[in-house]
Formats: sequence, structure tokens, C-alpha cells
Amino acid sequence: MTTVHRVYNFSAGPAVLPLSVLEEIQRDLISLPGVGMSILEISHRSAPFERILAEAEADIRTLAGIPASYKVVFLQGGASLQFSMVPMNLLTPGSTADYIDGGSWAEKAVKEARKIGNVNVAATTKGENYARIPRQDELKLTPNAAYVHMTSNNTIEGTEYKDLPEVGNLPLVSDTSSDMFSKPIDVTRHALIYSGAQKNMGPAGVTVVIIREDLLQRSQKSLPTMLNYAVHAENGSLYNTPPAFAVYTMGLVMKWLRREGGLAAIEKVNVRKAGKLYAEIDRTGFYRGTAQKAQRSLMNVTFRLPSEDLEKQFVKESTAAGLDGLKGHRSVGGMRASIYNAFPEDGVDALVGFMREFEARRG
Amino acid sequence: MTTVHRVYNFSAGPAVLPLSVLEEIQRDLISLPGVGMSILEISHRSAPFERILAEAEADIRTLAGIPASYKVVFLQGGASLQFSMVPMNLLTPGSTADYIDGGSWAEKAVKEARKIGNVNVAATTKGENYARIPRQDELKLTPNAAYVHMTSNNTIEGTEYKDLPEVGNLPLVSDTSSDMFSKPIDVTRHALIYSGAQKNMGPAGVTVVIIREDLLQRSQKSLPTMLNYAVHAENGSLYNTPPAFAVYTMGLVMKWLRREGGLAAIEKVNVRKAGKLYAEIDRTGFYRGTAQKAQRSLMNVTFRLPSEDLEKQFVKESTAAGLDGLKGHRSVGGMRASIYNAFPEDGVDALVGFMREFEARRG
Repeated sequence: MTTVHRVYNFSAGPAVLPLSVLEEIQRDLISLPGVGMSILEISHRSAPFERILAEAEADIRTLAGIPASYKVVFLQGGASLQFSMVPMNLLTPGSTADYIDGGSWAEKAVKEARKIGNVNVAATTKGENYARIPRQDELKLTPNAAYVHMTSNNTIEGTEYKDLPEVGNLPLVSDTSSDMFSKPIDVTRHALIYSGAQKNMGPAGVTVVIIREDLLQRSQKSLPTMLNYAVHAENGSLYNTPPAFAVYTMGLVMKWLRREGGLAAIEKVNVRKAGKLYAEIDRTGFYRGTAQKAQRSLMNVTFRLPSEDLEKQFVKESTAAGLDGLKGHRSVGGMRASIYNAFPEDGVDALVGFMREFEARRG
Repeated sequence: MTTVHRVYNFSAGPAVLPLSVLEEIQRDLISLPGVGMSILEISHRSAPFERILAEAEADIRTLAGIPASYKVVFLQGGASLQFSMVPMNLLTPGSTADYIDGGSWAEKAVKEARKIGNVNVAATTKGENYARIPRQDELKLTPNAAYVHMTSNNTIEGTEYKDLPEVGNLPLVSDTSSDMFSKPIDVTRHALIYSGAQKNMGPAGVTVVIIREDLLQRSQKSLPTMLNYAVHAENGSLYNTPPAFAVYTMGLVMKWLRREGGLAAIEKVNVRKAGKLYAEIDRTGFYRGTAQKAQRSLMNVTFRLPSEDLEKQFVKESTAAGLDGLKGHRSVGGMRASIYNAFPEDGVDALVGFMREFEARRG
């Protein structure tokens, strides 16, 4: 294997993958061992692919401790399609769904759900530019709501739930796209969990949905077949041709995560990585975190500089220094360092060093 | 590059890709030249990815001669999701859509469209086990139909349109999943063309939709955003994270196809390849083609043997001989040799040799 130039990729997603996974994909790209064809060419009805799919599911189940009463399905269309599939399947006529609006993506989920049925925004922090997630005492839940929707980590604003909201017996539905598998998750407190893979789990092109089996009864036969959770669950994610390569790559990332020690072990690394950045942000006041401290995300570290001119300069110079993708989302401005599971700790150290040096020159 | 074992892959899809494309993917898998990250990690909002996307679209436009009055969008969910998206976007309330039912996948399209609105089956050959496509004189079209839906090549039954149906001024919508880019296509005779990529165009995980711009006006804002053609067209396939790797790979296949000489050149190869197999099928009567001769597919060559026992033996022995995926779809039985653009001609020769030798031993 020749040495190749690699930058530090702070992108919010698609995002950095473990180098060992990339090397394994590269090695077997022309022909899967013992199969004689590429993963890009293999029939989804073949025994080797069925094994790849089953192993990916089994590793996901092991990592998250998913009980047998939940189905795991692999879909397409990203979390954005789930914004519609969740209410199409679960928001039965006459009932209301509660949405906790704690970030830009939560707001998009609300907008899509409103096209399907009755929506109650249980609480929102939009007026505070989503610098925090609504508190428990702010939630106005609907008795017998069809479900309560939350966003576990706000990729754009850099906040995350430290404790799940209390929703009693209401089914909790969580968009976990940007923190899934960055730390342990109590699946049993959820009714449905969905994640676009392209942050911690794999490449763009596959979405993981974990759904409690009893909810599948709500999926009406009148739904478009491809948008019906029950159909995908009954067919083991093989109703139609799945995104085979994305499933394969996600499976390799899951095996890497198991070798790293699983979710509790990776959480320790993530706490340490994020801690280094937040310590630097808080060190002198030159940098300023945009998220409320108690809810700071381990995945997306957002911060501002004293002026927009300095922010432009920071982006320009950091990019030139091989620190790529630090420009924040336009709705928040400033900087965003996305440091998912596979982001190397020496990249965090490099950013801390750059920040300190930048401040010394410009502060 | 070490030599790797490769079998002849007759799979109906996902299917064989050009070896040179696989080698290019392998070479650049760890780091795209000049970018410093893998195509699996790159932000979809980055300049390098935008270039990849734009080049894929440009090459598709060049290959098929697509006028500027058509949009080309890259979606997820396969042709199966298009079965729903087409009527959701185009079948306006009060109108009727005509469907030509010439194969198993056309029948599925009818089933999904019926969930959305009024459907008229303009003609069907289901009673003949889809051994042929309905003739022009059998079509009962609806005056002012919202559109007429057809399936250009029937992957399961091995038939294809040799000439497009005449539908006057009605918008013609074609599922071209299994023959797109295997021969020239007159885009201007269509209003919408859709193709899952995993036969001739690339890997599973991306779907190409070519749509005449005036039809975008039919897409209602009340539609789920991810299922709205107008949204994807306005956002240049970047409304949300696209399946970046599948788009990249499809782009490489398009460049390969241009190097091969384009659609007219590949059609000549496909006619020659299929011709060899059909000649062998017709040689003695031991093998029997299942599709009507005038409509035999260049892509999916279906045939039976004198008995099911012999068919089982044929599958077993051909697989052992490195000819993989020849078992026909369960609804038709017998054999199916899928010989898409990238299927090597020496693989066709190998199958002809095997067929002849098998007949000599068992005939």
C-alpha cells in the first residue's frame, strides 16, 4: 500500500471513516475473498451478501444491546425521508404527534410531519437560536400522543441531550443521525430510532431504523410499499435491492467499533477529544462556544471568534494547514469541528495547537 | 495490483461493472487525488464532490443527447420508489394514468400507482405469462391521460421494446432500469425516464430520473419534500446528502461508456453478444427461449431446458464452472443470462461453449 496524503476532515457528514476500514474496502474491492466478484457487483439475493447483511445487523444489535422485540432495518433516503416515513407510518388518523423542537433538523422534521397529520410542538428553543434543547419542565405533551419526536444531537447548533426526556408511556422517536453509536444508548426507552449513516456509522446512502415490533401494526397497507416499515421489516431489508455497498461498509465500521471496545469505550475517547476542544475554547475568552455549556455536543463543537473577519481568516488558514471543513453552518456562523468516532485524536490536538497559535498571532 | 479470482457474473442486478472502473475506485479509495480524503468521507457540499456530480450529469447528458429542457436528478430508493413517486408527482387529482402491463415489474408499478390515483391498464400480457409486450393495436389509451407508463425492458421475462409505443401527445413515462444506456434512446419522445443504476449504469444505491421541465409544475408543495421531483431538480440533487459513492461510481461508468464509443457503439457489442446466445438457444431445440422472438431482450436472455431436473443440473454445473447467477427468476423458471454493457464477451463465449458441451452430454 503506497502512502497517500490525507487531511484532517472535520466535515459534519459525510465524515471521516476509520483508515483500517478504508484499507479493507480497498483490498477487497475487485473481488470479495472467496466470492470472485466485487461487493459493487454482487447480487443482493446471493448467500455472501445475505451474510454481510446479517452480520451488520447482528453487530448493531450487539453494540447497542437491542432486544429481540425490536426490528433493525436498512433503508435509503437519509434522515430526511424518515421525517416523512415516521408520521406516515405512526401518526394514525385523529391522533397527534408531539415534537420537541431543539434544532434546525428538528424543525425540518416538524415541517414534514405537518404535511401528514396533527402536530403539537411540545416545546421550542428556536427563539434562542437553538443554543439549548428545551428543558423537561417546558414540555407540553399531548395525552395519548401518537409519539414524541426528539433529535438527540443537533449537528448544526452543537447541542445534545445528556438525559433522555421523560415522556411516560408515550412512544419516544429519536433522530440520532449525528450521535448514534458515539456512546451507549438505552434502546428500550425508545419506540423508534433512526440514523442516516454518514456520521458515525458508515458512508452516505444507508439509513438505520430500529423499531419496536408492536409499532409495525400501525403501518397501513395503503401506504406506498417502499415507505412502509412493516414491509421492510418483514422482508429483512430485502424488499427491493438495498444499497449493498453502503451496508457492507457500515458493517465493516461496526466491526471496527467492536474491536475498539464498543460504545462505552468509544464514549471515553469522545469525551476526551471534545474536552480538549472545549477547554481551549474556554481558556481565554478569545473563542466563544455557541451552545449552552451543560448541553455541549461531543460530536459537533461550535464556536465563534471575536469578529467575522477573524472567522474568515481562521477558515482560510486552517484549511491551508490541512484542517478541513471547519466552517460552521451558515445558520449559526463561526466554526464547527465535527469530531465523530473515527476522527483521530491527533487531529483534535492539531486543531487545539492551531487555535492557540492563531490566537497568539491575532488575539 | 495482484491478480484476483473473478467469476463470470450473469446476475440480473446488481451486476458486473467494468474492471477498469473497479481498478480506478480501488486506486483512489483511500484518498481522491488532490483532495486528501476518501470519496466515502467527502462532504457533499465540497467543491470536489460538486464537480463529481456535475461531471456525472454532463456525461449522462452527452451520452443520451438530453436536451436542456430536461432535468437530470439522482435519487435513492431504486425504481421501486419511483413506482410511487411518478404518480404522487404526475397523477393530478381527477385524471387517469395509463399503464402498459408487459412484465412483472410493470405489474408492480400498476399496484403502487393504484394506491395514489386512477389507473387504467391500457393493455396486459399477463395471461400469456408476459412472453411478449402488448402490441400497439392492443393499447386502450385514455384521452388526456396524465401519462402513459411503460417498462422498456422486462428483466424477469427477457423481452424488450424494439420501437416505442405511439401515444400521441400523452406524456410517456418509462422505467428503463434494465436497458438504460445499453443502446441509443430518444429522450425527446419521453416525458420522464427512470432507472435504478444497478444494471448498466453503476452500483445499487442511486436512481437516475430524467424529467421534462414542464412536468415539474405538477409536483404539489403538499408532497413530502423528499418525494417531490421539483425540489430535487431545483436543488441539483443536493437537497439532502446524496449517495455520494454511488454517484461517483456511476460517473466513472459513464466515462468508461464514452471511451467505449457511446451508446451506438455499445449497442453493436450488445447485439453481437446476445446474438451468440440466441443462436445457440435456437440451434437444435434442446434449449427453448421463453420470450417471443421479435421482442427478445439484449440484456436478459431467458431460456428453458427439456426438464426441471436438467435445469437444476445446468445451474449446478455452470456455477461450478465459474458461470455465476444463471438461475432464472422463480416466476419464469429456467435460466436467465443477464449480459449488461460491462459483461465481457468472452463470458458469453464461455457460456455458449458450456451450453454446447452440456447438451452433448445430456441431450
